Amino acid sequence: MEKTKEKDAENMKQVNFQEAMEFWAKPERIVLVTSTDAEGQPQVMTVGWKMRTSFQPPMLAISVGVKRNMHKCIMESKEFVIAVPGAELAKGTLLCGISSPEKIDRFKQGGLITKPGNFVSSPLIENCIANFECKLAADLPTGDHTIFVGEVVASWINETPSKNLLIIGEDGGTELLAAQGPYRIGVLR
Amino acid sequence: MEKTKEKDAENMKQVNFQEAMEFWAKPERIVLVTSTDAEGQPQVMTVGWKMRTSFQPPMLAISVGVKRNMHKCIMESKEFVIAVPGAELAKGTLLCGISSPEKIDRFKQGGLITKPGNFVSSPLIENCIANFECKLAADLPTGDHTIFVGEVVASWINETPSKNLLIIGEDGGTELLAAQGPYRIGVLR
Repeated sequence: MEKTKEKDAENMKQVNFQEAMEFWAKPERIVLVTSTDAEGQPQVMTVGWKMRTSFQPPMLAISVGVKRNMHKCIMESKEFVIAVPGAELAKGTLLCGISSPEKIDRFKQGGLITKPGNFVSSPLIENCIANFECKLAADLPTGDHTIFVGEVVASWINETPSKNLLIIGEDGGTELLAAQGPYRIGVLR
Repeated sequence: MEKTKEKDAENMKQVNFQEAMEFWAKPERIVLVTSTDAEGQPQVMTVGWKMRTSFQPPMLAISVGVKRNMHKCIMESKEFVIAVPGAELAKGTLLCGISSPEKIDRFKQGGLITKPGNFVSSPLIENCIANFECKLAADLPTGDHTIFVGEVVASWINETPSKNLLIIGEDGGTELLAAQGPYRIGVLR
């Protein structure tokens, strides 16, 4: 055991954050976030930094760059929608992450079909797998991003099945390695 | 187009949050978090709710249930380590998520090999893929969990390659659907 420990210790290397994040970041599920600007116009962006953060009340958190237009929209409108895109929206999701919202209509060019929310003025995306209407519950500055915590006031699913989009690496395939109850833990093959 | 819109609108169904989260939650990368209790003893738990939250300074966020022992450890020690487990630690990672820390030694029974951090007193896990030493930068209560934001003060990788553990569904396989530059977006097949 001590030998393994020494061997493993030798294997460890201190590196810069970005290099180490390569081992953290894939696969990463991605979502679309909509909100509304001061003129009442809907805006949308692709977000990779998001997590659940409460069972009761149901809450979701996203992290948005302080310089993003979306940052201003959420700070002002105090609401947002998180939509989970499926396979059909792969190109649209990429577009909403890399295009300039000043230059193109992301909704139109991304093939996003919108529908008014029931409890927020920001649009749902009909052709997504799931949508979560969120009221801003808290915002927390963290370096060059802000964490926005949304209390989920309505949840929607699409009855046409699809599969979650992911940021993926070069690997493919998953392998189940351990399971208990509802928990299935594995790796990309 | 209008017809598609109507069709998709009909496909949408409002459901409860938990049901909709089934469409959000898989696959989910999982990490191990260590911290130190008031007696100086290291503690570890499996965390699925985590995200990046700043490039500069580098920051990571986790969400921990307020009733968890780990919650108290982080509030008191003001530090934690995020370790990224690989395939070898599948069973150990499951164990650190479902076992009672009062009843078993999670480190020992989970096969976790520890090593002191350089900048925090919470242990690194040597046989993980990557480790991030974090100083608590902020904490934000969100419902039944607290978001802990850590500024990453040191990052480590393991030179023995492995693959990130995921919470996976019944599906297997990934398929590349859209790509540009470093971004690869796909689905589980």
